[in-house]
Amino acid sequence: MERYDFRTKRLFVEVPLAAGRQVEASPGQSNYLFNVLRLKAGDHVLLFNGADGEWRAELAPAGRRGCRLTVTDQTRPQSPASDLWYLFAPLRQARLDYMAQKAVEMGAGALLPVITAHTQVGRLNMARMRANAIEAAEQCGVLSLPEIGEPRPLNQVLAGWPAGRHLVFCDETPDAADPLAALKPLRGWPLAVLVGPEGGFSADERDRLRALPFVTPVALGPRILRADTAAVAALALVQALAGDWRAAPARVPDS
Amino acid sequence: MERYDFRTKRLFVEVPLAAGRQVEASPGQSNYLFNVLRLKAGDHVLLFNGADGEWRAELAPAGRRGCRLTVTDQTRPQSPASDLWYLFAPLRQARLDYMAQKAVEMGAGALLPVITAHTQVGRLNMARMRANAIEAAEQCGVLSLPEIGEPRPLNQVLAGWPAGRHLVFCDETPDAADPLAALKPLRGWPLAVLVGPEGGFSADERDRLRALPFVTPVALGPRILRADTAAVAALALVQALAGDWRAAPARVPDS
Repeated sequence: MERYDFRTKRLFVEVPLAAGRQVEASPGQSNYLFNVLRLKAGDHVLLFNGADGEWRAELAPAGRRGCRLTVTDQTRPQSPASDLWYLFAPLRQARLDYMAQKAVEMGAGALLPVITAHTQVGRLNMARMRANAIEAAEQCGVLSLPEIGEPRPLNQVLAGWPAGRHLVFCDETPDAADPLAALKPLRGWPLAVLVGPEGGFSADERDRLRALPFVTPVALGPRILRADTAAVAALALVQALAGDWRAAPARVPDS
Repeated sequence: MERYDFRTKRLFVEVPLAAGRQVEASPGQSNYLFNVLRLKAGDHVLLFNGADGEWRAELAPAGRRGCRLTVTDQTRPQSPASDLWYLFAPLRQARLDYMAQKAVEMGAGALLPVITAHTQVGRLNMARMRANAIEAAEQCGVLSLPEIGEPRPLNQVLAGWPAGRHLVFCDETPDAADPLAALKPLRGWPLAVLVGPEGGFSADERDRLRALPFVTPVALGPRILRADTAAVAALALVQALAGDWRAAPARVPDS
């Protein structure tokens, strides 16, 4: 994947992108570009919409406070969306914001909230999670937004698990395997990572998960990690061992 | 390493610990134990001081608002301090708080701030960094506080680098090696991890680092990671491949 110039501001837009198109920035974007970043007419930003790749665009004022972006040339073609699923128990808002941003930075293609026995947060602000995902995508350079699922009970998610996808279960029990040894056989398969709530998984949940043929338990070391730390740590191991951090790309999943 | 009961509150104290000793909780600790956690006389907490292991202690009110902790029995012997150094360019306070906590959770034994060409923060609140390290240690179960260094220029740190310790340099350039392949030869050696500022390293710094015999550059994937994300990701890879996340413990360093 070609790296983009991270000094140039990237904006997610929800319109088609092609050379010569004109895009009206939202009031929030206009204010950010002109008043926060202090960009001027003629300056450039990068635009992406999750479908058409990344494009350079030139700023011009429009109306009293608006901003028109004229698309000039493509800087990167659209890359395939990540097929890595990230399943997590919702956390309280500040850590949840953080975790959603981190999961996108780490290359998760889907953010899938699951309700577990010890989950302390039931309702999710989906718009806020999407805003966090957009902010992270703009910052870290991915060209696709992750899919964001509605919260579902863990048992329901496991009952309907798709064939051929392996689930990396971040287990707190010390007998869970050495993470690298456990992950190595998963190389090339469609993967998902499951991180539990701050209270951990219940004994029943742990037993059920460990009994499932598509589940691989991994231990994240001898210390208790906060859920948002475990998210980054687990995704780092999965990306490095079986994902897009390797020299060779992961196999394109069949499903 | 035996796991501790993470439902029991752990407190770092700066007095010797042994059976029968009485420890006066600080006003902040007393308020936290009685008014936030709503613990009562006779309830237990765990105490550690970085030297004597972890001990169970029983609460009793002392004076008008104070709390006396009577040490009863040892729950874990003192474990050796981590020899993993974490070198980082200071960030703005909120992310710095977060990064310090995360580095401790990930098992860093030393937090060593380095000033780089693009470092935007010069002065560091050392007391605040120590408070963050204590909070993380209490939460994640380590028995030693990391050493916290004063900020030093990167060049000075590299010039005085100790023989036999390898430095894992989190490089942003895409040609840096596959992280697992790069880290494998470091297994068993005393290690340090270096993460740069939000602006990245300068070309000169990168060239200098890559030319040093004790430096191993690793790439953390195709996306731009925030420095605090890179901290967790890099430490996760190092711990899993060469540190205490493996089934076999890392070699005890000579130095």
